[in-house]
Amino acid sequence: MALRLTKVAMRSRVATMSKSRSFVTVGGVTYPERVKIVEVGPRDGLQNEKTVISTDDKVKLINMLSETGLSAIEATSFVSPKWVPQMADNSAVLTQIDRKPGVWYPVLTPNLKGFESAVAAGAHEVAIFGAASEAFSKKNINCSIEESLERFRPVCDEAQKLGIRVRGYVSCVLGCPYQGNVDPSTVASVAKKMFDMGCYEISLGDTIGIGNPASTLHMLRATKDVVPVEKLAVHFHDTYGQALSNILIALQEGVSVVDSSVAGLGGCPYANGASGNVATEDVLYMLNGLGIKTGVDLHKLIEAGDFICSVLERPSNSKVARALGPKLLASRL
Amino acid sequence: MALRLTKVAMRSRVATMSKSRSFVTVGGVTYPERVKIVEVGPRDGLQNEKTVISTDDKVKLINMLSETGLSAIEATSFVSPKWVPQMADNSAVLTQIDRKPGVWYPVLTPNLKGFESAVAAGAHEVAIFGAASEAFSKKNINCSIEESLERFRPVCDEAQKLGIRVRGYVSCVLGCPYQGNVDPSTVASVAKKMFDMGCYEISLGDTIGIGNPASTLHMLRATKDVVPVEKLAVHFHDTYGQALSNILIALQEGVSVVDSSVAGLGGCPYANGASGNVATEDVLYMLNGLGIKTGVDLHKLIEAGDFICSVLERPSNSKVARALGPKLLASRL
Repeated sequence: MALRLTKVAMRSRVATMSKSRSFVTVGGVTYPERVKIVEVGPRDGLQNEKTVISTDDKVKLINMLSETGLSAIEATSFVSPKWVPQMADNSAVLTQIDRKPGVWYPVLTPNLKGFESAVAAGAHEVAIFGAASEAFSKKNINCSIEESLERFRPVCDEAQKLGIRVRGYVSCVLGCPYQGNVDPSTVASVAKKMFDMGCYEISLGDTIGIGNPASTLHMLRATKDVVPVEKLAVHFHDTYGQALSNILIALQEGVSVVDSSVAGLGGCPYANGASGNVATEDVLYMLNGLGIKTGVDLHKLIEAGDFICSVLERPSNSKVARALGPKLLASRL
Repeated sequence: MALRLTKVAMRSRVATMSKSRSFVTVGGVTYPERVKIVEVGPRDGLQNEKTVISTDDKVKLINMLSETGLSAIEATSFVSPKWVPQMADNSAVLTQIDRKPGVWYPVLTPNLKGFESAVAAGAHEVAIFGAASEAFSKKNINCSIEESLERFRPVCDEAQKLGIRVRGYVSCVLGCPYQGNVDPSTVASVAKKMFDMGCYEISLGDTIGIGNPASTLHMLRATKDVVPVEKLAVHFHDTYGQALSNILIALQEGVSVVDSSVAGLGGCPYANGASGNVATEDVLYMLNGLGIKTGVDLHKLIEAGDFICSVLERPSNSKVARALGPKLLASRL
């Protein structure tokens, strides 16, 4: 339907949808009253960890996360185990977790084959993964952005028939490890195409964590001009330590969905030794401080992070967990 | 003079001073056009590091920092070596560094004795250290806030006679390890008293790094109501990962002086294993992104951080340094 709307009609649709939302005001600045956190640790996080995690531990992590109040937990990825061996147990993970009513467990499905395996394993939501950089698309999946989007079309069509929700990722929205700069208008255009294709939500990913509050703002302004802001999510890696500031700007721009990873699981394949996804605990601490509702329990989240860090045998990448964790533990002794 | 102004006259003085400043606008939001970074690594940073650093290495660090374009580098502390053994070589450090014209090298002087030693060693700027928490003041220096301020008065008076600048620190502005909450009105009142006492700049310190963007905003609103905003600095520790977001809010509130520590030197004595001061490199990356001028060279800063981290034999706490450092090194091979 959206495809047939003119730009003016589209803007008015955006405005109408925005009006129905609730906000909180902090010192005259408006923030969404409620934010949905999409926990991506079990997929985007563990996929980029060097340690191989057993299926049992993945299931335990997801079950612990389900008890925190999160409403969306990305569970695994249905890609070829040749490319992502860490996710070879995708079907086992998806079938063995205790699905909590009201919680969504999206899984990554790059093509129809992956989609079919995901559906067979009981997926009720899938995610597709596009890029805003031609160089990244060519290097990563050996095709142009346009061709990659065409590959997603049959997945979207099949999903629609089966009543399965599709989430769209756009990667490299603030920079690309191969081509450098990425134009906000390209991000907007790719996001709109994925939205028009049927994605209910578009997650804008700063894959290499290079963005700053200004570039985040310009990218979001361009994108929310063509996709309703309540359909946009932001997905930051903390490579340059800017993730929370960028999220703060995104909230000020009206974005109300934030991807993050418990204990900051993950790394950056494009910068050795660099940080991974922004830590869910740190995002939640900021949202709590701003009085924004999430429904997520910080202490339970820290416990889930503690568990996976003990499996990985390394300290948490969440500063909140490092500061509060020992106090929590002491209070229980 | 300020002491004799009525509240209305004071506000009008604040408004007049604010009008003369320059700003940049990013997406309709106003930020200061130029920010002064006060580098506190050699004092606040090294004071909280467990490794003892030689005088030569401290001097080398300060000299490297002087070449980055920074205009203020806190050099050392003239406190009793009984309390802060790391700074026992204060006179040697201050006399041995190469003072670059145009760069200020403030030193901490808690009392008249410290002040006199600092002056003897050639200090041209000193800093005094108050608290916004009664519990912290009692526990730390065994007197009330009011009594501590009275102790600073002779330092300020002497400094004025000798034409030496005095910077005022207010600690615990967003929370206290002993009493918990700290009222913004207390922060404002202590800041105003120090300003009226003659401090040319008041640095508001989140000593335990517990603040969030909302509490930062409320504290700043209260304080800039009684002290001109261009006389305020913010000083964040990154214990809960919120430092950059809080700085972003402070910039949006018109604050144009930011304290930070190269390589994130320092720790938090009140939370074991927690992060120290916000890293100068990460602050600068955000300011550069926003188009705010600082005059500081990021690459030279990373080199100074690399040097001190090699002395400390630990990785940098700056995410920017960890991401960019290896690339910089590679480009030189």
